[in-house]
Amino acid sequence: MIYMDNAATSWPKPKAVYQEMINCMKYYGANPGRSGHRMSIMASEKIYECRENIARLFNIPNPLCVSFTGNTTEAINMGIKGCLKKGDHVIITGMEHNSVLRPIKKMEMTGDISCTIVDADQEGFVSVKDTVKSIQNNTKLIVVTHASNVCGTVNPVHEIGKIARERNILFMVDAAQTAGILPIDVQSMNIDILAFPGHKGLLGPQGTGGLYVREGLVLDTIKEGGTGSNSEEPYQPDFVPDRYESGTLNTPGIAGLNEGVKYILKNGQEEIRQYEKELTLYLLEGLYSIKKVKLYGTSDIEKRVGVISLNIDGKDSVEVCNILDEQYQIASRGGLHCSYLAHKTLQTLETGTLRLSIGCFNTKKEIDKVLHAINHMNGFIS
Amino acid sequence: MIYMDNAATSWPKPKAVYQEMINCMKYYGANPGRSGHRMSIMASEKIYECRENIARLFNIPNPLCVSFTGNTTEAINMGIKGCLKKGDHVIITGMEHNSVLRPIKKMEMTGDISCTIVDADQEGFVSVKDTVKSIQNNTKLIVVTHASNVCGTVNPVHEIGKIARERNILFMVDAAQTAGILPIDVQSMNIDILAFPGHKGLLGPQGTGGLYVREGLVLDTIKEGGTGSNSEEPYQPDFVPDRYESGTLNTPGIAGLNEGVKYILKNGQEEIRQYEKELTLYLLEGLYSIKKVKLYGTSDIEKRVGVISLNIDGKDSVEVCNILDEQYQIASRGGLHCSYLAHKTLQTLETGTLRLSIGCFNTKKEIDKVLHAINHMNGFIS
Repeated sequence: MIYMDNAATSWPKPKAVYQEMINCMKYYGANPGRSGHRMSIMASEKIYECRENIARLFNIPNPLCVSFTGNTTEAINMGIKGCLKKGDHVIITGMEHNSVLRPIKKMEMTGDISCTIVDADQEGFVSVKDTVKSIQNNTKLIVVTHASNVCGTVNPVHEIGKIARERNILFMVDAAQTAGILPIDVQSMNIDILAFPGHKGLLGPQGTGGLYVREGLVLDTIKEGGTGSNSEEPYQPDFVPDRYESGTLNTPGIAGLNEGVKYILKNGQEEIRQYEKELTLYLLEGLYSIKKVKLYGTSDIEKRVGVISLNIDGKDSVEVCNILDEQYQIASRGGLHCSYLAHKTLQTLETGTLRLSIGCFNTKKEIDKVLHAINHMNGFIS
Repeated sequence: MIYMDNAATSWPKPKAVYQEMINCMKYYGANPGRSGHRMSIMASEKIYECRENIARLFNIPNPLCVSFTGNTTEAINMGIKGCLKKGDHVIITGMEHNSVLRPIKKMEMTGDISCTIVDADQEGFVSVKDTVKSIQNNTKLIVVTHASNVCGTVNPVHEIGKIARERNILFMVDAAQTAGILPIDVQSMNIDILAFPGHKGLLGPQGTGGLYVREGLVLDTIKEGGTGSNSEEPYQPDFVPDRYESGTLNTPGIAGLNEGVKYILKNGQEEIRQYEKELTLYLLEGLYSIKKVKLYGTSDIEKRVGVISLNIDGKDSVEVCNILDEQYQIASRGGLHCSYLAHKTLQTLETGTLRLSIGCFNTKKEIDKVLHAINHMNGFIS
């Protein structure tokens, strides 16, 4: 199997991820932060270690500002619902995933908030100028996807973050496709809220994600419950990370995630990015040369990640995905990728696209096979 | 290490749990329900298998009514916030965990809902009569913990469920301490909403929990996002389980949980309960005979699970927990166990209690050692 579905979840993971998950389950599989016995303390320490490593990767000054969630969607919901109040205006982009669009559409429908969707261009780029134009007096939050999960286009988060900070507007970044893949510095990027997956670029297991909330910013909560702290209080604590972490954490998942993050810190994010860039460029160049293949997004390798969307003239993207699986043992993804807005922007809402997404364990040889498959399939189609 | 903290999370797990998690990560670690390639389909099938096994265990007619969550707290929040609207009245009991109390207190504070807390008696039993008396015209929901996470007392959920159904009031059960441990039949118990952990009595890994919502009952959502379905719609789907499962699921966790549930189905829940009952009785009898030990909850073994709370005269429960760990290698839990209400009921809010909680992998020999330790420690104290 040639796995080209890394935008959905990365696979495989570094060996240490598997090993540490089992290590955790077998040797310190207690509930972290809930008791003082040694297994519980070991579990707590491992979780704190993971907070520290994530903080290092994203230049977060205080590791306690990293809360763990079950996935990016949860973190996004916590961010959006945690800061938007009745009467607020929010700006999102035409490249957002349904995890941003759906919570906001729901809040808009009930009349609580208003929303402006800043259009992106045909390559998926959001204009900083248009974003500025959309700012209203009651704009509370700007949400931007760092890189599109459909076509890989990277948005100007640095610029938008600067403007948001100047205008005293909260800035939230959806790093679903970039955490562990592109450099993220919450301080220089003026990010107030960062939502990220554990199981994609950070190479951890599914069931992990995270939320960074800037120190001093206290969000409303969407879940309250036991936190192992202030148990005598009937109200949710206001300190981090407890405020955002109710109930038992996914300790083995976080132990695995910690190994994924360590793998990135050890091997160098820039080096991994460089490798993925080479593979992406190689695949893109190959695809551009195949007739009847239409590619979406930008060809500028500096402004994109390894998430590639295409269509083969006349073929349904889901069907192509199935053929790639059945006849060529290639895992990809067709359809709409849970991204109504992005496909609307790319004018692919009717057809969807075939998405090939690269991970750091793919090889040039695999790309050759993918190109061969698409060429071969194309021959049959024509 | 003698692990007596199973009420926080069960440990160890059946070997098949560890094995299947790694099997999943290595061989079908794709994103379930997000594509049509074989690894994604394998992941989806495994998740459906787990829904089926849970449905079998709880006599749930349609496995799609089982949604996966990150933990019980999340499921409880989804249940409570999913059905309570402005103006509603909710009844909870004096034995609820903070995972029930805190979301309700928050909703009460904002003036959205009103709440009656039905007192429990000194043994932790909630009176059905008092529950009935608390019903108001606008009572929408009754929430009852199946068994106390502090003292193990089992509540009359059958009777309360019957009354709730007759009065057309929704009935939600928090099965944090009973799922996989006591028989649960959502149909005969008239349970509309069941919140349960995957990582306690069901013997799965941390990071798993579940929500059952009766067919025909549609709850409001606390999270919306990508579901892999209806991607062209900016609104959350109204069908299960997608409505309640936004973002990537914890596939390796659920694969492990499936093995935990299979272990229970294979070995027989009644048999496991019988074994745990014997151990509990043995421990209780031993503890009753130690002077200066004060036990909480009921001595009626038929009306309790293996969650035992005690205090040793004059000793701080957290300190006792630490001594048990350091000097006797026994893992327990002191303090308030995230249960303000239950400790208030048991009049242990000031002192907390030492909690010893039994799991199906404990042995009589271990209980002997625990009794020896407490006897020994007691000798030092006196």
